[in-house]
Amino acid sequence: MTAVGPVDSDAGLLAPGRAGSPAESATGDRAYLRALLDAEAALTRAQASLGLVPARAASAVDAAADASRFDVHALALRARGGGNPVIPLVADLTAAVAEEHAPYVHRGATSQDIMDTATMLVAARTLDLVLADLARTERALERLAREHRDTAMPGRTLTQHAVPTTFGLKAAGWRSLVLDARDRLQSVRDGLPAQLGGAAGTLAAFTAYGTSDTGALVEAYAREVGLAAPALPWHTLRTPVADLAGALAFTAGALGKTATDVLTLARTEIRELSEGTGGGSSAVPHKANPVRATLIAAAARHAPQLAATLYGSLAAEDERPAGAWHAEWEPLRDLLRLVGGAARDAAEVAEGLQVHAEAMRAHLDLTHGLIVSERLSAELAPVLGRARAKELLTRAAERAGAEGRPLVDILQLLAEEPRLKELDLVALTDPTQYTGSAGALTDRALERR
Amino acid sequence: MTAVGPVDSDAGLLAPGRAGSPAESATGDRAYLRALLDAEAALTRAQASLGLVPARAASAVDAAADASRFDVHALALRARGGGNPVIPLVADLTAAVAEEHAPYVHRGATSQDIMDTATMLVAARTLDLVLADLARTERALERLAREHRDTAMPGRTLTQHAVPTTFGLKAAGWRSLVLDARDRLQSVRDGLPAQLGGAAGTLAAFTAYGTSDTGALVEAYAREVGLAAPALPWHTLRTPVADLAGALAFTAGALGKTATDVLTLARTEIRELSEGTGGGSSAVPHKANPVRATLIAAAARHAPQLAATLYGSLAAEDERPAGAWHAEWEPLRDLLRLVGGAARDAAEVAEGLQVHAEAMRAHLDLTHGLIVSERLSAELAPVLGRARAKELLTRAAERAGAEGRPLVDILQLLAEEPRLKELDLVALTDPTQYTGSAGALTDRALERR
Amino acid sequence: MTAVGPVDSDAGLLAPGRAGSPAESATGDRAYLRALLDAEAALTRAQASLGLVPARAASAVDAAADASRFDVHALALRARGGGNPVIPLVADLTAAVAEEHAPYVHRGATSQDIMDTATMLVAARTLDLVLADLARTERALERLAREHRDTAMPGRTLTQHAVPTTFGLKAAGWRSLVLDARDRLQSVRDGLPAQLGGAAGTLAAFTAYGTSDTGALVEAYAREVGLAAPALPWHTLRTPVADLAGALAFTAGALGKTATDVLTLARTEIRELSEGTGGGSSAVPHKANPVRATLIAAAARHAPQLAATLYGSLAAEDERPAGAWHAEWEPLRDLLRLVGGAARDAAEVAEGLQVHAEAMRAHLDLTHGLIVSERLSAELAPVLGRARAKELLTRAAERAGAEGRPLVDILQLLAEEPRLKELDLVALTDPTQYTGSAGALTDRALERR
Amino acid sequence: MTAVGPVDSDAGLLAPGRAGSPAESATGDRAYLRALLDAEAALTRAQASLGLVPARAASAVDAAADASRFDVHALALRARGGGNPVIPLVADLTAAVAEEHAPYVHRGATSQDIMDTATMLVAARTLDLVLADLARTERALERLAREHRDTAMPGRTLTQHAVPTTFGLKAAGWRSLVLDARDRLQSVRDGLPAQLGGAAGTLAAFTAYGTSDTGALVEAYAREVGLAAPALPWHTLRTPVADLAGALAFTAGALGKTATDVLTLARTEIRELSEGTGGGSSAVPHKANPVRATLIAAAARHAPQLAATLYGSLAAEDERPAGAWHAEWEPLRDLLRLVGGAARDAAEVAEGLQVHAEAMRAHLDLTHGLIVSERLSAELAPVLGRARAKELLTRAAERAGAEGRPLVDILQLLAEEPRLKELDLVALTDPTQYTGSAGALTDRALERR
Repeated sequence: MTAVGPVDSDAGLLAPGRAGSPAESATGDRAYLRALLDAEAALTRAQASLGLVPARAASAVDAAADASRFDVHALALRARGGGNPVIPLVADLTAAVAEEHAPYVHRGATSQDIMDTATMLVAARTLDLVLADLARTERALERLAREHRDTAMPGRTLTQHAVPTTFGLKAAGWRSLVLDARDRLQSVRDGLPAQLGGAAGTLAAFTAYGTSDTGALVEAYAREVGLAAPALPWHTLRTPVADLAGALAFTAGALGKTATDVLTLARTEIRELSEGTGGGSSAVPHKANPVRATLIAAAARHAPQLAATLYGSLAAEDERPAGAWHAEWEPLRDLLRLVGGAARDAAEVAEGLQVHAEAMRAHLDLTHGLIVSERLSAELAPVLGRARAKELLTRAAERAGAEGRPLVDILQLLAEEPRLKELDLVALTDPTQYTGSAGALTDRALERR
Repeated sequence: MTAVGPVDSDAGLLAPGRAGSPAESATGDRAYLRALLDAEAALTRAQASLGLVPARAASAVDAAADASRFDVHALALRARGGGNPVIPLVADLTAAVAEEHAPYVHRGATSQDIMDTATMLVAARTLDLVLADLARTERALERLAREHRDTAMPGRTLTQHAVPTTFGLKAAGWRSLVLDARDRLQSVRDGLPAQLGGAAGTLAAFTAYGTSDTGALVEAYAREVGLAAPALPWHTLRTPVADLAGALAFTAGALGKTATDVLTLARTEIRELSEGTGGGSSAVPHKANPVRATLIAAAARHAPQLAATLYGSLAAEDERPAGAWHAEWEPLRDLLRLVGGAARDAAEVAEGLQVHAEAMRAHLDLTHGLIVSERLSAELAPVLGRARAKELLTRAAERAGAEGRPLVDILQLLAEEPRLKELDLVALTDPTQYTGSAGALTDRALERR
Repeated sequence: MTAVGPVDSDAGLLAPGRAGSPAESATGDRAYLRALLDAEAALTRAQASLGLVPARAASAVDAAADASRFDVHALALRARGGGNPVIPLVADLTAAVAEEHAPYVHRGATSQDIMDTATMLVAARTLDLVLADLARTERALERLAREHRDTAMPGRTLTQHAVPTTFGLKAAGWRSLVLDARDRLQSVRDGLPAQLGGAAGTLAAFTAYGTSDTGALVEAYAREVGLAAPALPWHTLRTPVADLAGALAFTAGALGKTATDVLTLARTEIRELSEGTGGGSSAVPHKANPVRATLIAAAARHAPQLAATLYGSLAAEDERPAGAWHAEWEPLRDLLRLVGGAARDAAEVAEGLQVHAEAMRAHLDLTHGLIVSERLSAELAPVLGRARAKELLTRAAERAGAEGRPLVDILQLLAEEPRLKELDLVALTDPTQYTGSAGALTDRALERR
Repeated sequence: MTAVGPVDSDAGLLAPGRAGSPAESATGDRAYLRALLDAEAALTRAQASLGLVPARAASAVDAAADASRFDVHALALRARGGGNPVIPLVADLTAAVAEEHAPYVHRGATSQDIMDTATMLVAARTLDLVLADLARTERALERLAREHRDTAMPGRTLTQHAVPTTFGLKAAGWRSLVLDARDRLQSVRDGLPAQLGGAAGTLAAFTAYGTSDTGALVEAYAREVGLAAPALPWHTLRTPVADLAGALAFTAGALGKTATDVLTLARTEIRELSEGTGGGSSAVPHKANPVRATLIAAAARHAPQLAATLYGSLAAEDERPAGAWHAEWEPLRDLLRLVGGAARDAAEVAEGLQVHAEAMRAHLDLTHGLIVSERLSAELAPVLGRARAKELLTRAAERAGAEGRPLVDILQLLAEEPRLKELDLVALTDPTQYTGSAGALTDRALERR
């Protein structure tokens, strides 16, 4: 195996979110090299399968297309000349086969055919890993939602307690986003196409080399390389890349929702949740940080802008653009990696999450009953009239806040109203009895597969 | 009709791409106001349809929810207090109905229910307009592709002539992107959901007001307002907004591809295309600028970053985030408008495009035959051997370039080779005979509906 | 005053962050119209000041350049033709002067000269407003930092208590960011240049009309319009726009830092801070939301992507680009407005902020002394040896956490060590005595003017 | 030297724009490792210089802080635990010194102190390389501007010929952007600060370890590490990072302007410029692509969004944020690299650029004189009256276009007007005599140093 030059290469030191992850391996330079060679080999095999090149040439290219025999660093340096790594790779691959097979290497293709196909291969392989981690996450969240179907906790809006909700509903919501991400990724993954168009997308060279049915060739190529057959060469019709951008940015954000909630609820003052394994600190002993959620949150901050660069590359001039195509490569890889790392972290967060139901319950009392003021408004109005009910509640709320006493006590004190006494004020002000349809919504959400 | 304050309001002066477009009207403050009122009215009607509020209250709210009776500028100013326009709107709507109906206005809902539902209504109405313009564009491009199925032109890669292609294939490619955009927008549009969750997404207040089956209520509401029923309240599960972001950024980029090609091919030196109606200049008389394509290109530059902001809002904490939600409103509206304007301009470009086939033909000769050098490589190698063929071609190419003479002439001069004489060099170097599968690809692409 | 068409115009309904703000008025379509007319009038005056056009023509243009006489909506619609509003504006302005003066309207200029100059005028006027609000904010933060120089509170890292800090240092840090924003905005504002280049930046038409010294003309124009004189026409040298983008994105982020801290510290469970005037809710009575900070946070989420679009427009081809220039207009205006609104909100937040020092003090005990574990590590190691100190602290920390008792009590129980008894454990574990250089850093930071 | 794991590491295969560049080496994982160790060593030295730790400990740490002795891949993997690479690095560095010196490793610091300081070191070292390449670029552009001060060429707006300009002015404009970039980068580079704040920015641990004057310590540290001393710890006051973002995005865009012009003017149909060394193609023999400009253009498309992510991280909560900080690392590195690579390519483009003055001259005639219609409007109006002049010009222009004949010929035919005969129509319609102040502007621009 050729050693990677140690000076200039990256091993993930700045990327704890993905370091050592399967997605990192699946998207590294070596993985791209492998995919580029897979694309070249598939092209020759496809031509052989149609009798356009000798079967022995296909076998020879197959055998030569062994990534461990190529020097990825040298290829990177030589890629500068023509602006992409396929040009030097074709030279090396051609040199690696016997001279008689040389004419059949890369025959009829353009660099972009190989580069785009390889990119789709890398994307497909990485998405499979991401989907597996999303499945783990989804299962763990389903378990949490079931277990905590009726665990009441404060619902928070604009940072303030609003009305009660349940942790089950929250976990079911997280899960529904994970399923949305899964559906979008799976749909994109299933359609990832091979690329074959030749120099300017007309497949003309293949005709020059004798192919009468280029449609059959494209299909054979897609089959050999394990991707979908494209309707048209998509050198400058970048739907597959844009679709990846959207689905990946969506996934980063979907996982980011869980992460931001975990980070909020793990705060020292709140501590309704904690990560299974908190991370340490170089300065403060005994500190347990929600590191996994932090790294997911970091990914969710960067991913949208990477996607923006990719959407921007849709406006690609001519039959191959001078810049827009080249600007896709690293952002797409970075996006695949960020999401791959975030999916791994999300699975760990979901599987290890500790739920502190008692803290949730305790916090429901923090506002001295104001968290059920909406309910009281609804229930008292028919009894007392809206104006009187509002006046009473306002007075009670102020006093409860000022004295730090439960709203129910104040209401009982204030309640000269005989009609008020008929109400079960204790039940009406019990926040755990004011979770509305949280349970039913959770059940319904969990039916989704 | 209440006049909009003239000082602070915008009428599109900085936005020629969308000024006066249907999409602009569909996304203006007044359109939002209308949608907000539609949402409020639908909510009361839905409750009435389930017997939860008096039918007369629903009629009263319906009647009062007349946008022309509300002062949009005053609402905007009063929105500052609570940070959204629904709070003052509910106050005004409540004041606009008889006192007996007042309790039924906005009953059980939270601001976000109305704001999100209205946003989806605005999106649905705007997407319908966009889809209509995409249909016009698609039809015009289909016509162009058919007419120019065999119009040969230079295929260009990295700004340089590569091999010939056809304008038919180019137009068919543009059309395929338009259809991709249509499919993505239509799919998103069909799923745009109503929002109903109450204060923190549990629908609790509706229960407090007597609803036993909140599922039925949500469905009735969705039906009344004309949107899909959501599986869960999506206050902080922002899939619908993210899906809009992706589909709209895609559409801007898809149209941007056509625009960037038109701009390139309309250059003074190239002039293979020109816009039907070029725009003038304040400085240079008689100048005809490709203004429509320019405005589409401008939209395509901005749209991805608007989408990035929206994807970023997926990471929304709690049951309503303090910032992420508010950061969606203007970017989503801007994106709808940009795309709405670009779709109108794209239809005009496509319908009016002038194709200068003679210029295309002339340019095929600009490189003195180099544009078919790929073909010659393929055809000469079996005849002369690869090395000899390459050497001959290199020599001929240099001389053709230096002397500015057609490659075919040079080849005939150089061709002491008897075997070369057997080839039909005139046909082999005719660029219009080297368009590969362009015709077949065009035909196939046009089969897509 | 011409009424703005009510259907399509925006009055800020989706923008509570800026609705009704001075920055909104300063950036509205009407403000742009005024600036466009100011630029036209200044151009004629500048030519008159050099004797190139009759003084009476300059007076006539000045008089005609009255924004209230122009129909901004109609201009917006007519801007579609040539792709910018200057073309119809010049037509209307020409029609508004007596025929003898008509030749002197817009003489020698191109649309972009007027549009860019007007944009710089709008930017200058808006930045003056922003700077005034930053000054208010800075003063309020200085007062807070002085008052709370020694108010101890938990320092938080990765959401967890780390070691104590002071609110004074936090406020001083916020202030230093505000001053950084001020310095960057002021520097950009001071250099905002007029634009004058003619059709392609050579000033040729001015020469054709008889100007011998175009340098003097440019300077006279800059003087008349109240902007800096540019070294070169900057039609496609977009440094001024990019500098605005950077300084504005910086300001949004700088204010966003304060906002995110206020939002965190205003959470129901933390409540160390609250906004002077909390915003209400349409669903939950008695709720006080940190609305100002929310709107600032929303601005900080969107601003970076607007800046990205503007940075992207630096790569502008030719002497006027087909898209990159047009893509600047709305994002720059939006950025000015977002920041203008956020600056107003930041001043309100800073001036009204309520600091709950007692909550800060109480939270310092939440971790039962772990917040000073760093100090104990440092102090015990020399006394007990590092290993023994670490072992003791770990044991004590676990027990303090498990039993919910102060670390100092546990240490005293555990301290068979005679050397430990010599230490003043009460002082060493007092979090208010472990704020390091917070006071000195605050003092130093406040020296900056 | 520890080998980098070959599977997961990147060697630049997807990044021909920076592969093998000095900026790549300066920003690789190993360069970061070196900077991290430099920061650790400087911290101990600074403490030793103030007598706070034994001089021998500082020497020991210095000696141990040898990047070649650390396993960067293993550190990357272990960074996952706490979320940053400093935690395992401190462990390894501590293990690498004799036990007596161990207490002095990283004493008082937090991970972020070291990470931020290292990042500033990497930035400083990379900016020095970028500045050197900008200096090369600037000199080459100066030479081009001088040589072609009077080389007339078409000025183009919205893709169409407008009026003549000169290549000298164009090159001088490119140069002025390069100087703007230089000024912004140099200013940022000069202020890059060390970071020292301890666990939460109060420097408390340093006090606990006996430092009485933390200000002196911070200054000593900054001096030892070779960076500016910060006014405040900037853990969540991210001005230095935002300033880098802005200056780097600016530089990418500034170079992108040159690149987009080169790409346009190198088009096969235009060919007024060509790159010194064009890149080849894997499909089309004899093709010379403007590869350097293509790679710069690609960088300019991505850089703004990376900067947006960094601006977004300004809104960083608490004393260390959970995500915003981590989201800075890779985008900042990527931005440094992209710009470093683009600066190298820009120097090569500028130094090797081939200017085809004869093509520029020929294109001036492409519009048959319309390129000087602005001048004719100006000159004929006083002679013929505006209306008559306009009518004549319009007629002549149409005929010139239709007949493909020079405008001057048509005018002479049409000119029954005796007054027209008095004009030197040949001179007036000579495009090379209508370059306005292009020469003077070029001279003035080149005075800037």
